[in-house]
Amino acid sequence: MGKLRQFEKPTGFRDFPPPTAAKKRLLERRVQTCFQQWGYREVLTPTLEYFDTVGAASAIPEYKMFKLIDREGKTLVLRPDLTAPIARMVSSVMKDEPLPLRLFYHASVFRAQDDSARTVEFFQSGVELVGDPSPEADAEVIALAAEALSACEISSFQLAVGHVELLDALLQEQVEDPGQVERLKERLGARDVVGYKEQVAQLDVSPEGRNLLLRLPHLSGGKDRLEFLRPQMRSRRVENAVRHLREMWEALEDFGASRHVVLDLSLVGSLHYYTGVYFEGYALPSSFPLVSGGRYDRLLERFGRPAPATGFALKTDRLMEASPAADREMERVALFYPRSARREAIRRAQELRREGKAVILHVADDKDPKTEIDADRVVRWEEGEDGR
Amino acid sequence: MGKLRQFEKPTGFRDFPPPTAAKKRLLERRVQTCFQQWGYREVLTPTLEYFDTVGAASAIPEYKMFKLIDREGKTLVLRPDLTAPIARMVSSVMKDEPLPLRLFYHASVFRAQDDSARTVEFFQSGVELVGDPSPEADAEVIALAAEALSACEISSFQLAVGHVELLDALLQEQVEDPGQVERLKERLGARDVVGYKEQVAQLDVSPEGRNLLLRLPHLSGGKDRLEFLRPQMRSRRVENAVRHLREMWEALEDFGASRHVVLDLSLVGSLHYYTGVYFEGYALPSSFPLVSGGRYDRLLERFGRPAPATGFALKTDRLMEASPAADREMERVALFYPRSARREAIRRAQELRREGKAVILHVADDKDPKTEIDADRVVRWEEGEDGR
Repeated sequence: MGKLRQFEKPTGFRDFPPPTAAKKRLLERRVQTCFQQWGYREVLTPTLEYFDTVGAASAIPEYKMFKLIDREGKTLVLRPDLTAPIARMVSSVMKDEPLPLRLFYHASVFRAQDDSARTVEFFQSGVELVGDPSPEADAEVIALAAEALSACEISSFQLAVGHVELLDALLQEQVEDPGQVERLKERLGARDVVGYKEQVAQLDVSPEGRNLLLRLPHLSGGKDRLEFLRPQMRSRRVENAVRHLREMWEALEDFGASRHVVLDLSLVGSLHYYTGVYFEGYALPSSFPLVSGGRYDRLLERFGRPAPATGFALKTDRLMEASPAADREMERVALFYPRSARREAIRRAQELRREGKAVILHVADDKDPKTEIDADRVVRWEEGEDGR
Repeated sequence: MGKLRQFEKPTGFRDFPPPTAAKKRLLERRVQTCFQQWGYREVLTPTLEYFDTVGAASAIPEYKMFKLIDREGKTLVLRPDLTAPIARMVSSVMKDEPLPLRLFYHASVFRAQDDSARTVEFFQSGVELVGDPSPEADAEVIALAAEALSACEISSFQLAVGHVELLDALLQEQVEDPGQVERLKERLGARDVVGYKEQVAQLDVSPEGRNLLLRLPHLSGGKDRLEFLRPQMRSRRVENAVRHLREMWEALEDFGASRHVVLDLSLVGSLHYYTGVYFEGYALPSSFPLVSGGRYDRLLERFGRPAPATGFALKTDRLMEASPAADREMERVALFYPRSARREAIRRAQELRREGKAVILHVADDKDPKTEIDADRVVRWEEGEDGR
């Protein structure tokens, strides 16, 4: 074994030394307090799931999953997301619990990356609100995401809210070819507005349709943006989605959260299971989402318990970079004592711990006097003193 | 897809619904407070490690590991323990941090079981004290284990403390054949005292040697038990181990922890990397360890940073069964409101949350009046009232 190899960890996996681990725990504790105050309860799911069940229901493409074969020859995957496992759980061990259910989690997920330098195990904290189809439920999870970002001291952030079914309806009602619709969505998803407009210019659509399609990437703002869709309201799909968004917006106003929100009707859902409201949150001026989520009303039925649902996942790793939050950690006192004063030194350490300090005890008798301890304060106990 | 299959999770893996997840978090929080007060800092390691590095250094046999192959063709394992990954971490990303280091973790580990009904992903919370060879370091981790069990309200527990090098020396100095020594240790490890004594009876040893071997399983008690080894003290190995145990015991007295401890000189280390003091803790009268740990002075050198070390792992799943601890959880209030009173209801929920309650908001307008919410108290907001 070469020396270097001995230190290695697999590509894309990380160690968290104490300062990084402390930051993660601080942010998880803060968002957990929000989740609990809003009535969400923690659940845990296994690290491994069957590919045939959770793997297939997950929105993560198969080539990104870490697979292994168990002793019975079945294919297992390292959990690629939490939404599908929690849907499985709500439909099995929790099947007798009445809906709506409010659940949260802290967990790592595993996704292989094309670029081998990128992280493949990363952390999420999220909520799932299962069994409530109302616009208030969508507003609740968006307002809760805003509260969680505030609790992490993200000073300036914005939540962009779209509606995947509304976008599909608007595109499909102008453009007949499903392949064309997919390509338009790909460009919108990649925020390639120039490419999107070039493609729209080549489409065989009515002048009104073209006009609508060209305006779509610019329909970003408050509730009044929905007015632009008035001519499309003869479509039932558009009408229902617009009504839902309007009611959701009014609920967001009541939550005091609408100031953080912009409607963006060209927003493309990041995962295929979304069916309605979809949102992403950014620390301005960054364009990497710290949170994403939305409504997924068709996932639970795949596990035999049809129910509407909505939720979000905070991307903990990005949140750790974006958040300036720092703990007032315990003061760390290193107490060096001679063996002859051990009993008194231990007693003093116990007192200091009761006062809320972290105390490291270290016998100084036969030690290198240069011993360094990571502490805010070093106390060297001399024979006969009381260490105060 | 058959229906049943849709609900399945892989054999040996578990879902934790809210009451179970809450109990786990409660106990982790309690032991973490102990760890932090004693100066230990949290670290996180990856879920996957290289088999060639951490897998090979781990004390878990290879056939119990979950393996997969990464895209570069290297064999990865789901982490079978935390001690080897933390040793790797101390020798790599933390290589410039001076010793001693005090670290703790909460994590799941993965071990395939012969009996397919048994759990294969289970949880541990543990500490590692790296870089301190003193008997005080052994006493510290044993006293900290006792404090952690007390914090989990385990009312009656005992820590059995042995010394793997002392046991090896005592056996090897009476019995020449290494195979015989291994078989004696296997019987002691399986607590098969009858089988052990039958084997001793058949050995070709001196009468004094036989007498010592026959008494070994009964040398359990306080510091005075070490007196029985006075005749063996001419051996340097025995003398050093006995002196270390005596000094450790005196330090345990100073920690106020010796009342929880019994010396058991026939205790066999559960993992091969232990080199000195080894201990296990039980909630009486059970014989399943809630905690095990000890000194492993030769592991760090495998990662290129030779250093003595000691530590322990609490078996969180067993602790959850043994502990009567229950949280005073937030009171859960379900607030049903008509849409016309939404703004006032949200404001009232925010007040109640500031008062420390968990509040679930639910629009009651167009809902089945039988909607059940898991709450301690249900408030139905009528038009015009203020919800108090």
